[in-house]
Amino acid sequence: MIASFASPKLQALYEPVQQFLHDHIYPNELRWLQTPFHEVEREIRALRPQAQATGAWNAALSEAEGGPGLKLTEFAQLSELLGTSPFGHLAFNCQAPDAGNIELLLQYGSTDIRERYLEPLLAGDIRSCFAMTEPAYAGSNPVRLGTTAVRAGDEYVINGHKWFTTAADGASFTIIMAVTNPEAESPYARASMILAPTDLPGFELVRNIPIMGHAGEGWHSHAEVKFNNLRVPISNLLGREGEGFKLAQERLGPGRIHHCMRWIGICERSFDMMCRRAATRELSEGRMLGEKQMVQSWIAESRAQIDASRYMVLHTALKMQEEGQRAASTEISTIKFFVADVMQRVVDRALQVHGALGITDDTILSFFYREERGARIYDGPDEVHKASLARKILKQYGLKARR
Amino acid sequence: MIASFASPKLQALYEPVQQFLHDHIYPNELRWLQTPFHEVEREIRALRPQAQATGAWNAALSEAEGGPGLKLTEFAQLSELLGTSPFGHLAFNCQAPDAGNIELLLQYGSTDIRERYLEPLLAGDIRSCFAMTEPAYAGSNPVRLGTTAVRAGDEYVINGHKWFTTAADGASFTIIMAVTNPEAESPYARASMILAPTDLPGFELVRNIPIMGHAGEGWHSHAEVKFNNLRVPISNLLGREGEGFKLAQERLGPGRIHHCMRWIGICERSFDMMCRRAATRELSEGRMLGEKQMVQSWIAESRAQIDASRYMVLHTALKMQEEGQRAASTEISTIKFFVADVMQRVVDRALQVHGALGITDDTILSFFYREERGARIYDGPDEVHKASLARKILKQYGLKARR
Amino acid sequence: MIASFASPKLQALYEPVQQFLHDHIYPNELRWLQTPFHEVEREIRALRPQAQATGAWNAALSEAEGGPGLKLTEFAQLSELLGTSPFGHLAFNCQAPDAGNIELLLQYGSTDIRERYLEPLLAGDIRSCFAMTEPAYAGSNPVRLGTTAVRAGDEYVINGHKWFTTAADGASFTIIMAVTNPEAESPYARASMILAPTDLPGFELVRNIPIMGHAGEGWHSHAEVKFNNLRVPISNLLGREGEGFKLAQERLGPGRIHHCMRWIGICERSFDMMCRRAATRELSEGRMLGEKQMVQSWIAESRAQIDASRYMVLHTALKMQEEGQRAASTEISTIKFFVADVMQRVVDRALQVHGALGITDDTILSFFYREERGARIYDGPDEVHKASLARKILKQYGLKARR
Amino acid sequence: MIASFASPKLQALYEPVQQFLHDHIYPNELRWLQTPFHEVEREIRALRPQAQATGAWNAALSEAEGGPGLKLTEFAQLSELLGTSPFGHLAFNCQAPDAGNIELLLQYGSTDIRERYLEPLLAGDIRSCFAMTEPAYAGSNPVRLGTTAVRAGDEYVINGHKWFTTAADGASFTIIMAVTNPEAESPYARASMILAPTDLPGFELVRNIPIMGHAGEGWHSHAEVKFNNLRVPISNLLGREGEGFKLAQERLGPGRIHHCMRWIGICERSFDMMCRRAATRELSEGRMLGEKQMVQSWIAESRAQIDASRYMVLHTALKMQEEGQRAASTEISTIKFFVADVMQRVVDRALQVHGALGITDDTILSFFYREERGARIYDGPDEVHKASLARKILKQYGLKARR
Repeated sequence: MIASFASPKLQALYEPVQQFLHDHIYPNELRWLQTPFHEVEREIRALRPQAQATGAWNAALSEAEGGPGLKLTEFAQLSELLGTSPFGHLAFNCQAPDAGNIELLLQYGSTDIRERYLEPLLAGDIRSCFAMTEPAYAGSNPVRLGTTAVRAGDEYVINGHKWFTTAADGASFTIIMAVTNPEAESPYARASMILAPTDLPGFELVRNIPIMGHAGEGWHSHAEVKFNNLRVPISNLLGREGEGFKLAQERLGPGRIHHCMRWIGICERSFDMMCRRAATRELSEGRMLGEKQMVQSWIAESRAQIDASRYMVLHTALKMQEEGQRAASTEISTIKFFVADVMQRVVDRALQVHGALGITDDTILSFFYREERGARIYDGPDEVHKASLARKILKQYGLKARR
Repeated sequence: MIASFASPKLQALYEPVQQFLHDHIYPNELRWLQTPFHEVEREIRALRPQAQATGAWNAALSEAEGGPGLKLTEFAQLSELLGTSPFGHLAFNCQAPDAGNIELLLQYGSTDIRERYLEPLLAGDIRSCFAMTEPAYAGSNPVRLGTTAVRAGDEYVINGHKWFTTAADGASFTIIMAVTNPEAESPYARASMILAPTDLPGFELVRNIPIMGHAGEGWHSHAEVKFNNLRVPISNLLGREGEGFKLAQERLGPGRIHHCMRWIGICERSFDMMCRRAATRELSEGRMLGEKQMVQSWIAESRAQIDASRYMVLHTALKMQEEGQRAASTEISTIKFFVADVMQRVVDRALQVHGALGITDDTILSFFYREERGARIYDGPDEVHKASLARKILKQYGLKARR
Repeated sequence: MIASFASPKLQALYEPVQQFLHDHIYPNELRWLQTPFHEVEREIRALRPQAQATGAWNAALSEAEGGPGLKLTEFAQLSELLGTSPFGHLAFNCQAPDAGNIELLLQYGSTDIRERYLEPLLAGDIRSCFAMTEPAYAGSNPVRLGTTAVRAGDEYVINGHKWFTTAADGASFTIIMAVTNPEAESPYARASMILAPTDLPGFELVRNIPIMGHAGEGWHSHAEVKFNNLRVPISNLLGREGEGFKLAQERLGPGRIHHCMRWIGICERSFDMMCRRAATRELSEGRMLGEKQMVQSWIAESRAQIDASRYMVLHTALKMQEEGQRAASTEISTIKFFVADVMQRVVDRALQVHGALGITDDTILSFFYREERGARIYDGPDEVHKASLARKILKQYGLKARR
Repeated sequence: MIASFASPKLQALYEPVQQFLHDHIYPNELRWLQTPFHEVEREIRALRPQAQATGAWNAALSEAEGGPGLKLTEFAQLSELLGTSPFGHLAFNCQAPDAGNIELLLQYGSTDIRERYLEPLLAGDIRSCFAMTEPAYAGSNPVRLGTTAVRAGDEYVINGHKWFTTAADGASFTIIMAVTNPEAESPYARASMILAPTDLPGFELVRNIPIMGHAGEGWHSHAEVKFNNLRVPISNLLGREGEGFKLAQERLGPGRIHHCMRWIGICERSFDMMCRRAATRELSEGRMLGEKQMVQSWIAESRAQIDASRYMVLHTALKMQEEGQRAASTEISTIKFFVADVMQRVVDRALQVHGALGITDDTILSFFYREERGARIYDGPDEVHKASLARKILKQYGLKARR
């Protein structure tokens, strides 16, 4: 924790959560990565009492909503800690995409929806997913959508083709981004968010997309899904028609903070492993790996880059918290590509320091290496964020740059 | 092909091999990567007549040995072509580690060994492996070995623990690097190479090491193995006692060329995919991905780096061919780290240009990304090669640099 | 200014100083760089009333000492602003090396020394220098010193050879680091700081060292100096004998903050010029330079890196301020190499965006490019700081790494 | 020399030239850099007999033209050698821009022009310049030109504003790129090359542009020039009207080879100095700089990158030589940005290894550092070459990328 960002509330939670991770998560994570997810889920659910005992259950929520009531800057630091393991957030019921969906339902769900979907979600009894990206359109331009929701009486009839619908496998419901108002002038006013249970006949889970050698399963998967005349009541609309992007935007800012801090957690875990290896691996009689200057430079550069990342993300969170998400929009673009790049470098160096061991599954590093490669792509590739940030800056210099 | 490195003999083989890859390998490779290896092996063996018809079967061997009789510079360019698919070399029976073992048996195998092991290897009927690296010692310092072979009458009794024994699973025999002369003054004169069948009781395949999420199987695996009082006749010694490193050294130079050219093949394949994607992916109405200057810079830099790599490797091969392996020793160090670095960059860029598709298994790129991360580690990490090269250079300036 | 680091006191000074720079410094700096320094000095001294009117004269000092009484975190942000021009600090009498010398004299100068040297220094009427680095020893190992000060009655007799004695040309006195206690066990307890006027016969200014094409002159120079039986009263000793490194250390921490913030000022100036150019340079009919994605990526990456640098430096300053310099020692190492690297990248990109204009002296960029290359070397090369940081970290993992 | 690119003719010249550089150039170059150019010129002209005795005078020319008759691949390697000093090419009368002008006059000059201008140029008695770049238009788009040449009777009347006219100061004539056919459909057919003596009243040398702190002088300068109703006979036209770009293109290919090889010479010189320093600089008792792994990695990476550069350039030269300039057009784009980047890295590393000494003018490195920064800008910035190369490649994939 950074002194100026610490708080008594956060400090009270931090140590118990750290202890929980050491006791229940780190010792199991390599095994869990090779175990069918429904078994992992059962084991993790069995740990719920201990997780709840730390006070950090539903860590992102206010006290009224059943969480610890952390400010964004506080939750951010907890998110870093949870991010040190692939299963950290899951154990505390604040994993993507459920955490974001919870926010949406809290704010926009009807009483009925809240009872039927939000309650069990908050209890960790069901999971959900979020269907946005489509294979036919570049993810870098989110307003191009082929999925449509057409009103027919009291129902929406939804048709479309999505992919990278994270955790769809086993989810109880999905929130779908679909075009409801194709005639709206602004492309940002054409889509809406609609909740749909996954057990309806029109919901087709085509496949879990094999990624980096694994199709994955359950929460740990990214699905291709199709909606074939999927019919849901119009009361499943979240917010109003045409507000899809507005809601997505609201979901985006804090989500970006969560993600970036999770990545920093991955960095710190990798950094710790790199140092431990460097300090203990003997190269030849009495010469340790950590005495090599190239290894030292990696350690020093990683330390600097991780610290820089954390400062940037926490200050972005602080600005969002104090001045609102809109005021922090350039910062929100910046942290995405900055931290994703740092993560890839740090993980790569840690892996290299481990030599042949690094590419095996005997450590968590090879998982980070392949699994988190997506960080530079998901949620808009880095290049799009860089270009977008530069255009915002250049606009202040009078340039009307085209996309 | 580079004009100045082309030759009629190479040109006669090149096009048929290219055709073979297009007809039989590329269309199957993604499926094969998700198929049990023994089935893949059956399919690939069934393609043997067509492979042989190209004239490139046993591509690294002389005509006397049943190959096409290519010079090193010629084979190098064929190796690049075969390297464009993970299954290219296998289809032509010139895959590692068998190709290197064939060289050893050709040169050092007794008549008996050649009949029993070399013949079926040349025919592609069996596979083999090579047991060198040990988990207990840093791979960067190959003379530190714990495996011993002690003479007991007409036999060697071998004990030891190896890992990263590529393709041990299903191999008929292994060549083992073991200490036979612990008392030799030079650490380079203590070890020997000994052939051992894998069906002896003292040979224990502990596991196929899970690497980047996959334990692999058959040829496509890296095993941890133990030798528990493994007994083989002393006639299984290759060369003389204490010559293990000398033989390894001989095996190394051409092997390095093969590997680097295979990596360049991976680069060219990735580059081609990157360009194809850039030229055809629409970002928005009429704007193509390839019009973006960042993508253009990746394409240009990749082109330059791949070409630079090829020139360096071919000139290294030329020097080995004309002046001997010893004369080319600094070049052999150089190409390892230079080309491995280029490959990682090119594959990473190609993947990024593919966006979310790039991390899926719907293209070969994610396989290259994770599978070839080992290139910077196998065979001595890059850092060791850089330091070693620098020490050789600085010696000419009068510096006696310690390791 | 970063909201969480702003303060009413700083805000009150900031705008007037900014105005002063726009009115009096920026319009003159290119001309001053090509004008003999004594004329520049005269012009800048003539601006003293206006500079004092801003309230920021002697900006680093407490109110008791005649400065504005800024906290370190506040002064740091002012230092960034002043750093946007090579003449900013000079105009406010807080330039290196005088600012550091003022600190030393304030704390360790006798009444006599304070009257004779400190008073005119605070008034901006004289300049001073600091003689530490020696050509015969690597700057990366500061305890190796050849300069000696031997007591002879009431005097020290000083002999030695220094270089990179910044601003010695025209300085009224120098502070010399010299070995007084060669027999001390710890190499850190052998040297002392001694003040010497430069008009004594034993003080020889050998030359202003030509650097990047210019020998420089006056404040803007780095001298080679020799002490030939230079005799000064023993009362010119600062602190006690053997405390030289202790004093240097105290001088180092805040000095590092000043430097790094000055570098960030250089970054912001370069960034501003890069954006202005990108927004206004036409490539062809209606196509502006800033629409090019490579330029956009440089702008975005620069923005991110500059912001990251500022957060790191300000948090380091905050830690020093609240927990003391010792507590912040790893941070002090980190910011040096991190910010120096960012500065070189940002200046290089800004220069490149200016095309041929960038290498001319028609903008300040070519000056930054060549003049600030030293940042990665002065004060210990980056590599030394990285290795030192890594050793501190690895010590926590149990490694006793040798230098 | 690379064995496969050596030749008896080249070898016969190489050693004497190397000896000449060691005897007459290296010992003087630092002094010359601080001496008025007309004095340097006098000294260098005095060395002409010794230079001619090597057989390499007018090194780029055929035997018929009074040169040694080297092939492009041979001259390239000589150019590398000459490039190790800023004065190497000048001593052998093959310096830019004269070498290119000689080519133009040889091919397109009338008998009269050849007598009046070419003869003394070949003898090294006069110098010339080439006026192309204009401050008002981005150099990256050479067809945008404001300079015009209008026929008036037997004369062209030339008006325009150029800058970066290298070596105009003291040149006897210039070749001017000017628009003669503004109505031509293709922008590539609008300009012509016209020779103009510099002693005519309409030729105004506005200033030598201060670059990296120096306005320079004589051959070592870049001028801003204006043509104010400059009148020259129409027989001063080189080639035909509208052929300006065709001629420039012809001049470009070999010129690029010369430049890139000169840069490689700079790399080799810097590399040699880096190694010498690393091998001899003591850090502490018995610990040498070259034992540090970071320095070793710089040496290794530099070795690899320089070798890669040389192979690429020589193969490009070979292709031009055997298949013509047009066939090698992508290679010619590639080497520009690849080698310029390598040069900047190698010089930067060599400088860093020299510590504080590196930024002084006591070695040649600081000159290379600042003087050669232009390499990434002159002749089209790297980004333009990268984009252009990528567009050529993508065209083969069916993309019609706009500029």
